Amino acid sequence: MANTVENSKPFPTLVSVDPFLPANEQKGLHNRWHPDIPPFATVKPGEVFKVQCVDWTGGQIGNNDNSDDVRDVDLTRVHNLSGPVAVEGAQPGDCLVVDILDVQPFEKMPWGFTGIFELENGGGLFAKEFQSRAAKAIWDFEGIYASSRHVPGVRFAGIPHPGLIGTAPSQELLNTWNKRETGLIAELGANSVPPVAFPPEPKGAYVGQDGIPDEVRERIHREGARTIPGREHGGNCDIKNLSRGSRCYFPVFVVGANLSVGDLHFSQGDGEMSFCGAIEMAGVITFKTSIIKGGVEKFALKQPIFVPSPIDPVYSQKLVFEGIGVDLHGDGKQYNMDATVAYKQAALNAIAYLQKLGYTREQAYLLLSAAPIESHVGAVVDSPNACVTIGIPTGIFDQDILPKPEGLEKRDYGQCAIRSDGVV
Amino acid sequence: MANTVENSKPFPTLVSVDPFLPANEQKGLHNRWHPDIPPFATVKPGEVFKVQCVDWTGGQIGNNDNSDDVRDVDLTRVHNLSGPVAVEGAQPGDCLVVDILDVQPFEKMPWGFTGIFELENGGGLFAKEFQSRAAKAIWDFEGIYASSRHVPGVRFAGIPHPGLIGTAPSQELLNTWNKRETGLIAELGANSVPPVAFPPEPKGAYVGQDGIPDEVRERIHREGARTIPGREHGGNCDIKNLSRGSRCYFPVFVVGANLSVGDLHFSQGDGEMSFCGAIEMAGVITFKTSIIKGGVEKFALKQPIFVPSPIDPVYSQKLVFEGIGVDLHGDGKQYNMDATVAYKQAALNAIAYLQKLGYTREQAYLLLSAAPIESHVGAVVDSPNACVTIGIPTGIFDQDILPKPEGLEKRDYGQCAIRSDGVV
Amino acid sequence: MANTVENSKPFPTLVSVDPFLPANEQKGLHNRWHPDIPPFATVKPGEVFKVQCVDWTGGQIGNNDNSDDVRDVDLTRVHNLSGPVAVEGAQPGDCLVVDILDVQPFEKMPWGFTGIFELENGGGLFAKEFQSRAAKAIWDFEGIYASSRHVPGVRFAGIPHPGLIGTAPSQELLNTWNKRETGLIAELGANSVPPVAFPPEPKGAYVGQDGIPDEVRERIHREGARTIPGREHGGNCDIKNLSRGSRCYFPVFVVGANLSVGDLHFSQGDGEMSFCGAIEMAGVITFKTSIIKGGVEKFALKQPIFVPSPIDPVYSQKLVFEGIGVDLHGDGKQYNMDATVAYKQAALNAIAYLQKLGYTREQAYLLLSAAPIESHVGAVVDSPNACVTIGIPTGIFDQDILPKPEGLEKRDYGQCAIRSDGVV
Amino acid sequence: MANTVENSKPFPTLVSVDPFLPANEQKGLHNRWHPDIPPFATVKPGEVFKVQCVDWTGGQIGNNDNSDDVRDVDLTRVHNLSGPVAVEGAQPGDCLVVDILDVQPFEKMPWGFTGIFELENGGGLFAKEFQSRAAKAIWDFEGIYASSRHVPGVRFAGIPHPGLIGTAPSQELLNTWNKRETGLIAELGANSVPPVAFPPEPKGAYVGQDGIPDEVRERIHREGARTIPGREHGGNCDIKNLSRGSRCYFPVFVVGANLSVGDLHFSQGDGEMSFCGAIEMAGVITFKTSIIKGGVEKFALKQPIFVPSPIDPVYSQKLVFEGIGVDLHGDGKQYNMDATVAYKQAALNAIAYLQKLGYTREQAYLLLSAAPIESHVGAVVDSPNACVTIGIPTGIFDQDILPKPEGLEKRDYGQCAIRSDGVV
Repeated sequence: MANTVENSKPFPTLVSVDPFLPANEQKGLHNRWHPDIPPFATVKPGEVFKVQCVDWTGGQIGNNDNSDDVRDVDLTRVHNLSGPVAVEGAQPGDCLVVDILDVQPFEKMPWGFTGIFELENGGGLFAKEFQSRAAKAIWDFEGIYASSRHVPGVRFAGIPHPGLIGTAPSQELLNTWNKRETGLIAELGANSVPPVAFPPEPKGAYVGQDGIPDEVRERIHREGARTIPGREHGGNCDIKNLSRGSRCYFPVFVVGANLSVGDLHFSQGDGEMSFCGAIEMAGVITFKTSIIKGGVEKFALKQPIFVPSPIDPVYSQKLVFEGIGVDLHGDGKQYNMDATVAYKQAALNAIAYLQKLGYTREQAYLLLSAAPIESHVGAVVDSPNACVTIGIPTGIFDQDILPKPEGLEKRDYGQCAIRSDGVV
Repeated sequence: MANTVENSKPFPTLVSVDPFLPANEQKGLHNRWHPDIPPFATVKPGEVFKVQCVDWTGGQIGNNDNSDDVRDVDLTRVHNLSGPVAVEGAQPGDCLVVDILDVQPFEKMPWGFTGIFELENGGGLFAKEFQSRAAKAIWDFEGIYASSRHVPGVRFAGIPHPGLIGTAPSQELLNTWNKRETGLIAELGANSVPPVAFPPEPKGAYVGQDGIPDEVRERIHREGARTIPGREHGGNCDIKNLSRGSRCYFPVFVVGANLSVGDLHFSQGDGEMSFCGAIEMAGVITFKTSIIKGGVEKFALKQPIFVPSPIDPVYSQKLVFEGIGVDLHGDGKQYNMDATVAYKQAALNAIAYLQKLGYTREQAYLLLSAAPIESHVGAVVDSPNACVTIGIPTGIFDQDILPKPEGLEKRDYGQCAIRSDGVV
Repeated sequence: MANTVENSKPFPTLVSVDPFLPANEQKGLHNRWHPDIPPFATVKPGEVFKVQCVDWTGGQIGNNDNSDDVRDVDLTRVHNLSGPVAVEGAQPGDCLVVDILDVQPFEKMPWGFTGIFELENGGGLFAKEFQSRAAKAIWDFEGIYASSRHVPGVRFAGIPHPGLIGTAPSQELLNTWNKRETGLIAELGANSVPPVAFPPEPKGAYVGQDGIPDEVRERIHREGARTIPGREHGGNCDIKNLSRGSRCYFPVFVVGANLSVGDLHFSQGDGEMSFCGAIEMAGVITFKTSIIKGGVEKFALKQPIFVPSPIDPVYSQKLVFEGIGVDLHGDGKQYNMDATVAYKQAALNAIAYLQKLGYTREQAYLLLSAAPIESHVGAVVDSPNACVTIGIPTGIFDQDILPKPEGLEKRDYGQCAIRSDGVV
Repeated sequence: MANTVENSKPFPTLVSVDPFLPANEQKGLHNRWHPDIPPFATVKPGEVFKVQCVDWTGGQIGNNDNSDDVRDVDLTRVHNLSGPVAVEGAQPGDCLVVDILDVQPFEKMPWGFTGIFELENGGGLFAKEFQSRAAKAIWDFEGIYASSRHVPGVRFAGIPHPGLIGTAPSQELLNTWNKRETGLIAELGANSVPPVAFPPEPKGAYVGQDGIPDEVRERIHREGARTIPGREHGGNCDIKNLSRGSRCYFPVFVVGANLSVGDLHFSQGDGEMSFCGAIEMAGVITFKTSIIKGGVEKFALKQPIFVPSPIDPVYSQKLVFEGIGVDLHGDGKQYNMDATVAYKQAALNAIAYLQKLGYTREQAYLLLSAAPIESHVGAVVDSPNACVTIGIPTGIFDQDILPKPEGLEKRDYGQCAIRSDGVV
């Protein structure tokens, strides 16, 4: 047993949070991207460290049976990110190698949520088509599995991952983002519902660090890029396979790289269709980093690349739905090589099928958002129709969902959590 | 040995072709979709049968080392489909269950091709960006593997599948197709290069059956839908996982269902980006069918659904490229939740990486089109950026392609087959 | 199309057979291992070639519904191997790299068989326990799938592979084999039923080549090693994952290596428990070879090693049975770290379970032999009990076979093919 | 946020341990199997609960760089099991369904060990062949990965699982075990080195509960079955796929079932060849149980069965070594259908290969024991040779280990931890 105690060192936790407290009262959190946000902690390459994260809303959503909290969520305060963590020696033009060694929920908080957001407050893929009202599902975590009292009949292994992870932008890159996104808003209308993009917004902006000069803080709040979209630095890409065990290569834009992370997911389906579609959770992520000098040039790194984990749930049998770039569920409109529309049609085909099994439209929407569905781009060259598929693993259901000569068995699965006023 | 000979019956071949002869001189082939194309053969549910197919161009592309044939391809004559095969008892509103039991190249033709088509003759995902000139790769089949003298350094197992398979449309459905697609042409301009869609075109139309009254044949040629896009009946979906061993469920629109198939692929990457991006081949497909009465209603079947094969090449390690809905490789334009653009950016990131390994842009384009790359829709809810990933299996290369501290080893892989005038 | 015809060369077939004719009337077949069997054909490294094979019995088993042919099989005439094929330049001490590029049944013979052999004629893992009488199942091949009228309720994708493949032994190695195996016979008794090993046996020996001097042929018949066991050169290893797409590395013992192959299987479960337990078939195998000089020393090659195919049926969910080194199904005898007994107990546990579903003991035995079951050595260090598992893929059944609170549904699956006198 | 706190209940921990304290000073641990060991805790079916476990030796092995602790380990005190946990309503003849929901190391102890035990103290598969002296490897856990300063060049994802889990035996079953195992000892000699089996042994016996009457405790110590082998109730089966996420079905022999668990492994190779071959760890396991009344009869349950987890590391490419039932690495002895010998030969072939890469024999032995190698029973019917394969995942190495024409690159990997006196 010699040396055992001294050799048994838990990894240091660089950011500690309480997932039950408001995010904007906690240190080491921030919710905008800006090069002037100072590192909250610094590591050497090769060190293993942990970072705790609140859920993306910073505790605005509760474990209960109505969706009023989803209806009333304040989106100016999201996403609450932990960091930044600087890596010694990282310089602009380098590649920051990040091993996502583990992602776990808090032991004291073994649950997460999936939400359908209101058309007027957040939206989601079908916000307009469904005239979405707030709805949600609470998912209970039992070890590697999630199940929900709001979406009965399914149980699946999670693929825990950060929905949002990225390096800090340079001022130049930040300017590019703000310019192009405000340009899009200008082009398509600032009053779009839901919004086409989110311009910088001082309201709700937060950097949980002391000692930042007021003018710097004010500039961060004024200029800081919103966290909603993924961009050149990574960010909110919501890629389910960027999961525990993956190795990621980020371009570095500022000295120290300044890595931030948040929006942890216990599980997510490809596309994350309901906007807050993953199983959102608070939890702990474990990292190790290294630096490849000049990696941006070496690997032609316009955006992050990564090697997925060797660990991934294997549900070999899938029922696959096809979608094409025509609005088959609506007015039949023909789009021009539009993979987004194709994805939507595949999703609507899947939702219609799940309704035959007894799920409500809202339950089906939540289920496809949260479960490990696989969406592949089939083809994007067969003019004018893109083809996209959505595959549902059959093994996550407690019944056989494959087509049968006698049709499908329609069960009563109740309804997910809806608003206390009963509006769906 | 009693009864052995009588019990050893090969399955009947309902359509026989010679892949070296012109398609429009052969029986059992057709190249337009129309309800009035009579069945070329009829089967009972439960029968196993084979159908031979020419390659999609009908033998226009040769096994040689220049791409003049690709440059000069006549696209009015594609795709050459085998069939239709009627299934006894199938009625509109039924679901036709099709087991794709096997897909094999001809023994006498152990090769296929992947083409980059000219901007002005076919196009492809990057036709405009690359100002595409004709190029191609010949792939040699050695058992389950494909490799190419035109794209050295890779070898991979195929996922043989029909790029194009579908039931015949009803007249009403055909009218819908023609109306919406000609509408798109009208909206976006008939002179687009490459075209946004392909209206009915009597030139090149072909139905390889005798005894069709002239006025019927003339109407088929005049009204028949082109085969380029996938639609409600399936058609040219180019889904690589609709492969040998899969079970597919098609909506039935006409009496007998009238199944047609063609455009066999030895392999394809998700997206099939170079248009003629799969490894195109002639070959033999083996089918078994059954009927689920009223299946369209039972399964809410707007489009085909399917269960993929339990057999699929497993290359577990992948290098994944991210793409977002911004033209990062071009003018930096911001798109609005555009998964097609996100796919394109991921593809360009991958191409840039492969060029660091020594592949030319054209080789990389062909490689990503033909090899079993996986493209997932990451997220389509993070306004304004869709995120799409492209994963390249590392195990198909004869070198380790992962990022390394010292950078990548650039090898000399020559060039793919280009035009005899040397224009690339 | 220039050069297409000259570039479309099918691969040469070096051994051609008719699976319906007696093996001992055909050229290029042999059924003993001996260094003096001359090569039937010679290839250069890098050439792709095909070899046709009769089934291992040489056509003794018929496609019919009784098992009299199994009862009466003449085992002195097996296995009928195709070859030898010499590879130019191969020398003793080299490593022969063999790519198994493809394995296919004959188109005219889309079926195979699995047999339970009589206790007194061939035996099998449970020959004594079950006092085995001949039984069999005919499996029909529909593309990649096999199913059987004799074992209803299952259908699975094949893993076609050669049960038997190996290089020729040197005289020294042959002498070693014969000495050690006849030694075992001497030790355990020549009258064991079934035999513990098979000594050289001139009766039934066959080398299908002309021009072999009589004294050589006589020596081959007299000394030639029987083909039943796997040995240092490979041989009858019956490894299901040595399948189409795998790359194998064989030690070379004679000039030219002299590769022979036979005993093709459409599918097999780990362990191949019923002796003739795979789905035995006639068919065609496609090879490519190369040589690594001095490979035996370079890789410490006492026996073949291999890299399995990237293509393998994926049935992710399995029901796993444990077995330990105690005869739990018999007299309770305690064995000493005996993995064979542990495998047998796991198998008996699985058979007992399958009987609860309605299969007869014989059907269950055949099913586990032929289907893609996975048997792992769990642990062989926990004295005195080895632990071995057998995993049955649940996805091959047309019902859900997992344990349920209400118990299992027992169906009537009839019986497999048995002897015409009704003895089971 | 309403109800959030009350709905955020961590799962109860029924057994709490300190992995750094001696096991025999802690409550809720025991190290013998006996029906009279009272339940330490009781749960209702459906409850999720956690159980903490010390490592199997109870903290006898330290995190340091010599193996003296392995040399001196006291095996009378193993395995230290947590429990028993009784399940309300379970009766003999029932089936206890156990969901292994999670298995995690202690956060404060992110490491484990693999040991080669002395020939005279524990042994291992090659104890005699290698005349084993104590050696070990410490493995550091970084999230899902393990790597070792004592076996450089590899890093792999864990498959955390309990090596030992089982229900309590009835008195009758216990008597059967003791009778048959002492019988084997009598047959093969009580002085075998290492021992063939372990008879009941009061020395070191421990039940960490107060209030057990002395005569009961004394009987438990005197009669209690040792924990080394797996048996009808499960026990020390060391099955790596009985991992987090698996569902297991145990026969119940006593009222309450009385489930005990221990010997947690972070990873293990099939066979666990070096005896203490897994990566042994202390940690926490999460369970949920249910009861199927009369399940022993319903499922013919002689031993546990299970459904593996959908989560399992996927390293698709493997290098596979064959072994047959002949002592090819020793005296060439011919065995009779012996899968244990075949496993050993495959292992020795693999060790010889790894030595060509620069690993010492001890490192190779430890590596194959601990890494996720797959060992399949190839065939056990080809008299006289069983064939067993061992597949090493190539993706766990930081170099390409496949055979190459130029041979393998031999690196300097140093040596694992050995005895302080330097004896290997």
